[in-house]
Amino acid sequence: MLAFVVRRGRLLLQSKPIPRLRPGWALIRVRLAGICNTDLEILRGYHNFRGTPGHEFVGEVVRVNASPGTAKRIVGRRVVGEINISCASLSYAKICPMCRRGLSTHCAYRRVLGIVAHDGAFAEYLSLPLANLHLVPAAIPDEQAVFTEPLAAACEILEQVDIRRHRAAAVLGDGKLAQLIARVLQDAGLRTVMFGKHARKLALARRAGIGTVLSRSATSGHRGRALYSLVVEATGSPQGLRQAVALAAPRGTLVLKSTFHGTAAMASWPMVVNELTLVGSRCGPFPKAIALLRQHRVDLRPLIRRGFPLEQADQAIRFAARRGVLKVLLKP
Amino acid sequence: MLAFVVRRGRLLLQSKPIPRLRPGWALIRVRLAGICNTDLEILRGYHNFRGTPGHEFVGEVVRVNASPGTAKRIVGRRVVGEINISCASLSYAKICPMCRRGLSTHCAYRRVLGIVAHDGAFAEYLSLPLANLHLVPAAIPDEQAVFTEPLAAACEILEQVDIRRHRAAAVLGDGKLAQLIARVLQDAGLRTVMFGKHARKLALARRAGIGTVLSRSATSGHRGRALYSLVVEATGSPQGLRQAVALAAPRGTLVLKSTFHGTAAMASWPMVVNELTLVGSRCGPFPKAIALLRQHRVDLRPLIRRGFPLEQADQAIRFAARRGVLKVLLKP
Repeated sequence: MLAFVVRRGRLLLQSKPIPRLRPGWALIRVRLAGICNTDLEILRGYHNFRGTPGHEFVGEVVRVNASPGTAKRIVGRRVVGEINISCASLSYAKICPMCRRGLSTHCAYRRVLGIVAHDGAFAEYLSLPLANLHLVPAAIPDEQAVFTEPLAAACEILEQVDIRRHRAAAVLGDGKLAQLIARVLQDAGLRTVMFGKHARKLALARRAGIGTVLSRSATSGHRGRALYSLVVEATGSPQGLRQAVALAAPRGTLVLKSTFHGTAAMASWPMVVNELTLVGSRCGPFPKAIALLRQHRVDLRPLIRRGFPLEQADQAIRFAARRGVLKVLLKP
Repeated sequence: MLAFVVRRGRLLLQSKPIPRLRPGWALIRVRLAGICNTDLEILRGYHNFRGTPGHEFVGEVVRVNASPGTAKRIVGRRVVGEINISCASLSYAKICPMCRRGLSTHCAYRRVLGIVAHDGAFAEYLSLPLANLHLVPAAIPDEQAVFTEPLAAACEILEQVDIRRHRAAAVLGDGKLAQLIARVLQDAGLRTVMFGKHARKLALARRAGIGTVLSRSATSGHRGRALYSLVVEATGSPQGLRQAVALAAPRGTLVLKSTFHGTAAMASWPMVVNELTLVGSRCGPFPKAIALLRQHRVDLRPLIRRGFPLEQADQAIRFAARRGVLKVLLKP
């Protein structure tokens, strides 16, 4: 099969054997894959990942290593897949303490699709445990289903924060993840305001009913502004956290979504004096994301900037890295 | 009256008039005052405070601007006092949104005893609103009562964190506040381990039944160590936060207590990947601290290093700044 691998900051096309299946695993033909900022970070050396990247996808199950009953139920169906592969699915002799507590997304030995020790979706096929798969209802076209993974990550905020305690939220950043987060919070009933640097990206958010504030520099222009009891930091830049602290009301909640791999000079005393709560937030609930898409409560197609055939993955990822570009898709 | 004021990094003795009382305020004769790290920061220019510092005290009410009934009830009694002076007590025309929500410690216009725009306890007398005062039971000697304010700050953690979800806690730092925090957590039923750099301070904690780990550098020596679901950062140094993140288990809670006025280079991605919750924590409930002292559940006298007469406040604060020195008291 065709698959791209990371080599010296680029994606290199290779011919690879189709993945072999452990018991309880499925082989999936990728129908559509999304490029995420994490993929761009991987090209820069994040996690020293040398395999096939790509963790946002919608695909079709073509084979399973499971009972005929299971096979009959799932082969041929469209699926999306959770990206954390935990102890249990890796048939380790001992289950780790995190998995024993039911926190399999924090499995101490996890592999992560296209990120840590498991090949991802920038290929014709990928493999995942059946336990990771979710069926895609017919009402959701591929172009929306491919957003399930990042949309679930946005929904994670609703799991971690008691949204009823807030009336409004500030979302810092206007990129792909920030756009999803703002839509999820808006849908959950919060008056949502996006703070970003790109007029065209902010215009997209406005079309979805989200308030916007254009601020060219990360920290300027906030003096005297209203403070928010809920602030989500999704700028993908090391300055974002400082900006988020400046926008948070005393006793406010600040959700951290950026996994930017840099450090920023931070003073912790404003968090102490204002008794802020910071919540790190990563992967989220797929069923909730699928429900949002099935019920047409969010429309993510306007976020798609361009599709490329899989063979042009390297051009695609360099296009995705350009300033102002939102979602780029790959079609095998 | 005698009072010390901050001038060019030192405490200067002055003769000041006894404070005049607004309606609803009390005049208190200071019996004993404690020196806190915040006082050392104020000498370094924190808050540009130029008045009389000192916010830890036990005193005796000598006069009130209130009804004869109130006066009869409180004049002559020993009291400790909450340090945040909010809108209501300042007779402002309009109550701020924080006070309206009952969060008077976060009052937008607050003055803070010995820290922000209100003279403090390094003097013969101080004034505070009656609403800020708490009677000291006879069972608590002055040498314990003087710890009420920082002990309440330690107790704030129990208000913010659901302690039943944890079995053990790591406290980073072995200074004054860290010592109080470790005792409060230990008393609340958590197996508590203090990480510090000073063998003698750690020995004090061990005598109170607290586990200790000596680590000369802020970040070394933690590889392969057990992780904690609850970590309290009370090092008073900018490196503390990084060390705290390294000691926290996935989905763990990290309480920030240091108000050190510096910045530290911080990567936020470990907080995101491990979905940590950081909780900034400042002032706390006096009644809980008084109860701990009255019931002899904590004994803080071993933390007192030395007492000075008020007249020697400048020597006292320079002594308190020495490496390894814990609580220093001033007696007017």
